[in-house]
Amino acid sequence: MQYIISEIPVFEIVAGFSARMIHTDHVTIAFVDVTEGAILPEHSHFHEQVTTVLEGEFEIVVEGVPHRLLSGMSIVIPSHAKHSGRAITAFRAMDVFQPVREDYKIKG
Amino acid sequence: MQYIISEIPVFEIVAGFSARMIHTDHVTIAFVDVTEGAILPEHSHFHEQVTTVLEGEFEIVVEGVPHRLLSGMSIVIPSHAKHSGRAITAFRAMDVFQPVREDYKIKG
Repeated sequence: MQYIISEIPVFEIVAGFSARMIHTDHVTIAFVDVTEGAILPEHSHFHEQVTTVLEGEFEIVVEGVPHRLLSGMSIVIPSHAKHSGRAITAFRAMDVFQPVREDYKIKG
Repeated sequence: MQYIISEIPVFEIVAGFSARMIHTDHVTIAFVDVTEGAILPEHSHFHEQVTTVLEGEFEIVVEGVPHRLLSGMSIVIPSHAKHSGRAITAFRAMDVFQPVREDYKIKG
Protein backbone atom coordinates (compact mmCIF):
# COMPACT_ATOMS: atom_id res chain seq x y z
CA MET A 1 0.00 0.00 0.00
CA GLN A 2 1.42 3.33 -1.15
CA TYR A 3 0.56 6.77 0.24
CA ILE A 4 1.04 10.37 -0.85
CA ILE A 5 1.17 11.88 2.60
CA SER A 6 -0.20 15.29 1.57
CA GLU A 7 -3.34 13.57 0.23
CA ILE A 8 -4.19 11.80 3.50
CA PRO A 9 -7.14 13.54 5.21
CA VAL A 10 -6.05 15.75 8.11
CA PHE A 11 -7.42 15.49 11.58
CA GLU A 12 -6.66 17.80 14.47
CA ILE A 13 -5.40 15.83 17.50
CA VAL A 14 -5.61 18.94 19.69
CA ALA A 15 -5.79 22.62 18.66
CA GLY A 16 -2.82 23.43 16.42
CA PHE A 17 -1.69 19.80 15.95
CA SER A 18 -2.84 18.62 12.47
CA ALA A 19 -2.07 14.99 11.68
CA ARG A 20 -2.09 12.76 8.61
CA MET A 21 -1.93 9.11 9.63
CA ILE A 22 -0.98 5.76 8.18
CA HIS A 23 -2.30 2.74 10.08
CA THR A 24 -0.69 -0.60 9.23
CA ASP A 25 -1.16 -4.01 10.84
CA HIS A 26 1.33 -3.15 13.59
CA VAL A 27 2.02 0.59 13.81
CA THR A 28 0.48 4.00 13.31
CA ILE A 29 2.65 6.70 11.75
CA ALA A 30 1.39 10.26 12.20
CA PHE A 31 2.83 13.10 10.13
CA VAL A 32 2.07 16.16 12.21
CA ASP A 33 2.09 19.88 11.35
CA VAL A 34 1.99 22.15 14.37
CA THR A 35 1.42 25.88 14.65
CA GLU A 36 3.76 28.07 16.71
CA GLY A 37 2.77 28.22 20.38
CA ALA A 38 0.39 25.24 20.21
CA ILE A 39 0.12 23.29 23.45
CA LEU A 40 -0.10 19.52 23.85
CA PRO A 41 -1.78 18.93 27.22
CA GLU A 42 -0.31 16.25 29.48
CA HIS A 43 -1.58 12.79 28.65
CA SER A 44 -0.42 9.19 28.42
CA HIS A 45 -1.31 6.03 26.49
CA PHE A 46 -0.23 2.42 26.52
CA HIS A 47 1.24 2.80 23.01
CA GLU A 48 4.98 3.33 22.79
CA GLN A 49 5.71 6.53 20.82
CA VAL A 50 8.76 7.77 18.96
CA THR A 51 8.64 11.43 17.94
CA THR A 52 11.08 12.75 15.33
CA VAL A 53 11.20 16.45 14.53
CA LEU A 54 11.63 17.06 10.79
CA GLU A 55 11.53 20.87 10.90
CA GLY A 56 11.22 23.50 13.64
CA GLU A 57 11.48 23.24 17.42
CA PHE A 58 9.36 21.46 20.01
CA GLU A 59 9.63 21.35 23.78
CA ILE A 60 8.34 18.07 25.18
CA VAL A 61 8.16 17.11 28.85
CA VAL A 62 8.27 13.36 29.53
CA GLU A 63 7.62 12.22 33.10
CA GLY A 64 8.55 15.71 34.33
CA VAL A 65 11.79 15.98 32.33
CA PRO A 66 11.88 18.70 29.62
CA HIS A 67 13.53 18.01 26.26
CA ARG A 68 14.11 20.55 23.50
CA LEU A 69 13.83 18.82 20.14
CA LEU A 70 15.21 20.46 17.01
CA SER A 71 15.01 19.17 13.46
CA GLY A 72 16.87 15.85 13.23
CA MET A 73 16.18 14.81 16.81
CA SER A 74 14.04 11.94 18.11
CA ILE A 75 12.66 10.99 21.49
CA VAL A 76 11.29 7.67 22.68
CA ILE A 77 8.24 7.93 24.96
CA PRO A 78 7.72 4.61 26.73
CA SER A 79 4.33 2.98 27.15
CA HIS A 80 2.21 4.84 29.77
CA ALA A 81 4.75 7.70 30.23
CA LYS A 82 3.08 11.07 30.90
CA HIS A 83 4.01 13.69 28.33
CA SER A 84 3.08 17.21 27.30
CA GLY A 85 4.54 19.75 24.90
CA ARG A 86 4.74 23.22 23.45
CA ALA A 87 5.59 24.35 19.91
CA ILE A 88 8.49 26.79 20.36
CA THR A 89 8.24 27.43 16.61
CA ALA A 90 5.88 25.99 14.02
CA PHE A 91 7.20 22.47 13.48
CA ARG A 92 6.73 19.26 11.52
CA ALA A 93 7.20 15.89 13.19
CA MET A 94 6.62 12.23 12.66
CA ASP A 95 5.21 10.08 15.45
CA VAL A 96 5.49 6.30 15.35
CA PHE A 97 3.06 4.51 17.65
CA GLN A 98 3.11 0.82 18.49
CA PRO A 99 0.63 -0.82 18.58
CA VAL A 100 -1.84 0.84 16.21
CA ARG A 101 -3.77 3.84 17.56
CA GLU A 102 -7.25 2.35 17.16
CA ASP A 103 -8.64 5.45 18.93
CA TYR A 104 -7.29 7.67 16.13
CA LYS A 105 -8.82 5.41 13.48
CA ILE A 106 -12.22 6.16 14.96
CA LYS A 107 -11.63 9.93 15.12
CA GLY A 108 -9.96 10.10 11.68
CA MET B 1 15.65 8.50 25.60
CA GLN B 2 16.58 11.33 23.24
CA TYR B 3 18.65 11.05 20.04
CA ILE B 4 20.47 13.44 17.74
CA ILE B 5 20.13 11.39 14.58
CA SER B 6 23.33 12.70 12.94
CA GLU B 7 25.32 11.48 15.96
CA ILE B 8 24.11 7.87 15.73
CA PRO B 9 26.86 5.64 14.30
CA VAL B 10 26.29 4.76 10.65
CA PHE B 11 26.23 1.28 9.32
CA GLU B 12 25.97 0.27 5.68
CA ILE B 13 23.04 -2.11 5.11
CA VAL B 14 24.17 -2.80 1.55
CA ALA B 15 26.55 -0.78 -0.67
CA GLY B 16 25.27 2.79 -0.91
CA PHE B 17 22.62 2.44 1.82
CA SER B 18 23.93 4.11 5.02
CA ALA B 19 21.66 3.82 8.04
CA ARG B 20 21.41 5.36 11.50
CA MET B 21 19.07 3.35 13.70
CA ILE B 22 16.99 3.75 16.81
CA HIS B 23 15.91 0.50 18.47
CA THR B 24 13.12 0.80 21.04
CA ASP B 25 11.24 -1.93 22.91
CA HIS B 26 8.88 -2.43 19.97
CA VAL B 27 10.22 -0.90 16.75
CA THR B 28 13.38 -0.08 14.85
CA ILE B 29 13.53 3.23 13.00
CA ALA B 30 16.26 3.51 10.38
CA PHE B 31 17.21 6.89 8.91
CA VAL B 32 18.81 6.00 5.60
CA ASP B 33 20.98 8.01 3.21
CA VAL B 34 21.35 6.45 -0.21
CA THR B 35 23.67 7.27 -3.09
CA GLU B 36 22.33 7.69 -6.62
CA GLY B 37 22.12 4.40 -8.50
CA ALA B 38 22.52 2.21 -5.41
CA ILE B 39 20.75 -1.14 -5.65
CA LEU B 40 18.84 -2.92 -2.90
CA PRO B 41 18.86 -6.61 -3.82
CA GLU B 42 15.62 -8.56 -3.47
CA HIS B 43 15.06 -9.82 0.05
CA SER B 44 12.33 -10.34 2.63
CA HIS B 45 11.96 -10.45 6.40
CA PHE B 46 9.21 -11.21 8.85
CA HIS B 47 9.26 -7.60 10.10
CA GLU B 48 6.63 -5.29 8.72
CA GLN B 49 8.30 -2.23 7.13
CA VAL B 50 7.06 1.26 6.31
CA THR B 51 9.38 3.30 4.10
CA THR B 52 8.90 7.06 3.83
CA VAL B 53 10.98 9.08 1.37
CA LEU B 54 12.05 12.41 2.88
CA GLU B 55 14.10 13.66 -0.09
CA GLY B 56 14.91 12.32 -3.59
CA GLU B 57 13.44 9.44 -5.58
CA PHE B 58 13.43 5.69 -5.03
CA GLU B 59 12.03 2.88 -7.15
CA ILE B 60 10.94 -0.05 -5.03
CA VAL B 61 9.49 -3.33 -6.27
CA VAL B 62 7.24 -5.14 -3.80
CA GLU B 63 6.11 -8.66 -4.74
CA GLY B 64 6.83 -7.86 -8.38
CA VAL B 65 4.97 -4.52 -8.43
CA PRO B 66 7.12 -1.41 -9.04
CA HIS B 67 6.44 1.80 -7.11
CA ARG B 68 8.11 5.15 -7.69
CA LEU B 69 8.44 6.98 -4.39
CA LEU B 70 9.12 10.70 -4.30
CA SER B 71 9.67 12.88 -1.25
CA GLY B 72 6.53 12.83 0.89
CA MET B 73 5.46 9.33 -0.11
CA SER B 74 5.28 6.17 2.00
CA ILE B 75 4.89 2.50 1.25
CA VAL B 76 3.88 -0.34 3.55
CA ILE B 77 5.78 -3.59 2.97
CA PRO B 78 3.94 -6.43 4.70
CA SER B 79 5.67 -9.11 6.71
CA HIS B 80 7.56 -11.56 4.44
CA ALA B 81 6.89 -9.57 1.23
CA LYS B 82 9.79 -9.74 -1.26
CA HIS B 83 11.18 -6.33 -2.12
CA SER B 84 14.07 -4.75 -3.99
CA GLY B 85 14.93 -1.22 -5.03
CA ARG B 86 17.01 1.27 -6.96
CA ALA B 87 17.98 4.84 -6.09
CA ILE B 88 16.81 6.90 -9.08
CA THR B 89 18.45 9.88 -7.40
CA ALA B 90 20.35 10.12 -4.13
CA PHE B 91 17.62 9.96 -1.50
CA ARG B 92 16.89 10.08 2.21
CA ALA B 93 14.28 7.82 3.75
CA MET B 94 12.97 6.60 7.05
CA ASP B 95 12.16 2.93 7.56
CA VAL B 96 9.97 1.80 10.44
CA PHE B 97 10.30 -1.90 11.25
CA GLN B 98 8.09 -3.84 13.62
CA PRO B 99 9.17 -5.81 15.59
CA VAL B 100 12.72 -4.66 16.36
CA ARG B 101 15.45 -5.64 13.86
CA GLU B 102 17.56 -7.69 16.26
CA ASP B 103 19.75 -8.67 13.29
CA TYR B 104 20.67 -5.00 12.74
CA LYS B 105 21.52 -4.56 16.44
CA ILE B 106 24.19 -7.21 16.02
CA LYS B 107 25.63 -5.65 12.85
CA GLY B 108 25.38 -2.06 14.12
